[in-house]
Amino acid sequence: MIAEIIAVGTELLLGQIVNSNSQFLGRALAELGINVYHSVVVGDNESRLVAALEEALSRSDVVITTGGLGPTADDLTREGVSVALGRPLGFDERVWRDIEGFFKRVGRSPTPNNRRQAYVIDGARVLDNPNGTAPGLIIPHGDKTVIMLPGPPGEMIPMFERFVADYLKGRGAGNGIIHSRILKVCGLGESSVEDNLGDLMGLGPNPTLAPYAYPGEVHLRLTARGESIGEARALIEPVERRIREIIGEYVFGSDEDTIELAAGRRLRALGLTVGLGESCTGGLIGHRLTQVPGSSDYFRGGVVAYSNEVKMAALGVKRETLEHFGAVSGETAAEMSEGARVFAGSDVGIGVTGIAGPSGGTAAKPVGTVHLAIAGPRGAAHKRLALWGSRESIKWRASQEALAMLWKYLAPGKDAG
Amino acid sequence: MIAEIIAVGTELLLGQIVNSNSQFLGRALAELGINVYHSVVVGDNESRLVAALEEALSRSDVVITTGGLGPTADDLTREGVSVALGRPLGFDERVWRDIEGFFKRVGRSPTPNNRRQAYVIDGARVLDNPNGTAPGLIIPHGDKTVIMLPGPPGEMIPMFERFVADYLKGRGAGNGIIHSRILKVCGLGESSVEDNLGDLMGLGPNPTLAPYAYPGEVHLRLTARGESIGEARALIEPVERRIREIIGEYVFGSDEDTIELAAGRRLRALGLTVGLGESCTGGLIGHRLTQVPGSSDYFRGGVVAYSNEVKMAALGVKRETLEHFGAVSGETAAEMSEGARVFAGSDVGIGVTGIAGPSGGTAAKPVGTVHLAIAGPRGAAHKRLALWGSRESIKWRASQEALAMLWKYLAPGKDAG
Repeated sequence: MIAEIIAVGTELLLGQIVNSNSQFLGRALAELGINVYHSVVVGDNESRLVAALEEALSRSDVVITTGGLGPTADDLTREGVSVALGRPLGFDERVWRDIEGFFKRVGRSPTPNNRRQAYVIDGARVLDNPNGTAPGLIIPHGDKTVIMLPGPPGEMIPMFERFVADYLKGRGAGNGIIHSRILKVCGLGESSVEDNLGDLMGLGPNPTLAPYAYPGEVHLRLTARGESIGEARALIEPVERRIREIIGEYVFGSDEDTIELAAGRRLRALGLTVGLGESCTGGLIGHRLTQVPGSSDYFRGGVVAYSNEVKMAALGVKRETLEHFGAVSGETAAEMSEGARVFAGSDVGIGVTGIAGPSGGTAAKPVGTVHLAIAGPRGAAHKRLALWGSRESIKWRASQEALAMLWKYLAPGKDAG
Repeated sequence: MIAEIIAVGTELLLGQIVNSNSQFLGRALAELGINVYHSVVVGDNESRLVAALEEALSRSDVVITTGGLGPTADDLTREGVSVALGRPLGFDERVWRDIEGFFKRVGRSPTPNNRRQAYVIDGARVLDNPNGTAPGLIIPHGDKTVIMLPGPPGEMIPMFERFVADYLKGRGAGNGIIHSRILKVCGLGESSVEDNLGDLMGLGPNPTLAPYAYPGEVHLRLTARGESIGEARALIEPVERRIREIIGEYVFGSDEDTIELAAGRRLRALGLTVGLGESCTGGLIGHRLTQVPGSSDYFRGGVVAYSNEVKMAALGVKRETLEHFGAVSGETAAEMSEGARVFAGSDVGIGVTGIAGPSGGTAAKPVGTVHLAIAGPRGAAHKRLALWGSRESIKWRASQEALAMLWKYLAPGKDAG
């Protein structure tokens, strides 16, 4: 089965938003063993949309559109599909009642143009949208199918998972699947990973192994084809084992795992809690730790100590330390990490102070200078970073390094005294 | 001039990363007045990459590739372009010295496979990459040009801005440009915005006006074509003025502005400072406020009060309040906002408490219940939210609403007593 993705929206062509929907659909279709050879973006223009639909229908079995189902005059996917398939649109009372119900639930009222969203292609199956006003549609058309999904990811993704995946399985997707497993590494650069793994990197054609570098992480993607997910997993498993034998101490997780999840798992396993004293990261480390469901079991809280007054009053950083070594120094970071433990009543404390830029740098302490410190039952740890890039990038990498440092600090086999 | 984008990487086809490079290039090329009719993704496969390059060269003037310039065996863009253009690759000593210099600067050593990155297409202009190891290349080829850029956005974007934009201008881009301006709205839904703006929504063909809904925001995109950026701006300006006459009190900014920037601007204009007491958002509001350069002028700091102990000890929330109303209540949020002021020594305090899920909800307080409170010189404000979606989405929307509430709290013309 061949599928094609048409993302509709001038804002995509002009780069005003990122095409995350095609990413989601690419992944979801691969997991179903469905090939995607074409992924197209068209603007809010009916004739170009109709042309794209006709071309897609000529070469693919399933055409999935995202976007253009909103209430406004430039939302044209309903009209475009109606023209491309030569099938009329009709007002659907039940869909309109669902839209009214959605507005009631969120405490707002529909406007007249919301009625546009209740128009349905003749013969289509309507897909409920509990997260918004635009219903999705599945339209069987000869031996082809057009599937229309809304553009907002918070509406499109649940709709795909609830209805479309099952529909495609029922259409016969799944004779052969592609399965990937990602091993995530921190503390080794991309070329060091490849050097360590040596011949393993030339692996193929089934499974294949490919490294990808991200800020502070390297991902190793193992991809196998098989008749079933079990067969694909069996091809991947011995390679994963070999990778872990070689660089296992750097592998913090797999697939959707994040470094904040990995650090949280180790805190939980050791029965330890953590508190934060953040300066230049401004709350980002707390935000990332609390993205993990259940993080309240080990995350107590923290201080965002942007001003020196807060560093002193809430984290007990000494005035002499600030005056002698500066707010951005290993000494201040160490006192912040100790202060974070006391403040949060936690076992482990993390202190982060640095210069995120774009201003505030000096010759001795340029923008990107960041000091990390950990205090806890395994003693004190300190790291000085020299980061580069934008303010956002420096904040992100500082949080990444702090979480990786916490993860390593909690490594099994280390002295817990 | 017609350009085509080829993003190289199996991880893009399989949806393992989002194609943010094509977004950036789409926007940058539109600003240069260059049309993009095709934007293609190909995997790490030399023959498919060669085919995509040949097709692109047959229909576009400029072909821009991103990705596939890394050190590992699956980085094949150098080889693919060499084959498609029929021009050899050669080792470039100067490029290799730059790569060695990069490693020295970041305190690491190159590995043997980094030498792959020093191979250059015959006749190409080499683009320095101070942010990574892979240089870019500009390859004039008859009346066509191939431009090869690295995949990591932190390397690709600076390289485009430093070299490629000027090169394309020199090649004659700019006879006619497309310019967009985005007005950003909060406090009105997409269909209410369209209702308020009425006939303006049917505007066109030059400029056009299109609304886009995002969590907690609506963006109004005005797009004009002109001979120059000045001409395009002159077409947009009167429409922008009319929009502001109608819904100006909801317009918090334009283009790259964020709600955290808009709130920060009002704090700065009023000479006020802010402190935070965050529970369910876990530091996200502090993180967002501190994404803005110069935010230390008005952001003092805050508490991430995940445990009730921290809420009481650091924010002065009363035990009776927690016991009687619960941690997730308007009363607790109000005490957190007052406590945040005291803690941070700030004029304004924000308190946020809620249930981000996926567990922890009850019938009376389901997942997504969030209470926001502001305390400050204009008195107290409170808002109860009923959000839905994933934990990440609830945290994001809570932060969005809190920042929008702060922005409104600081609106000009309000009584500052």
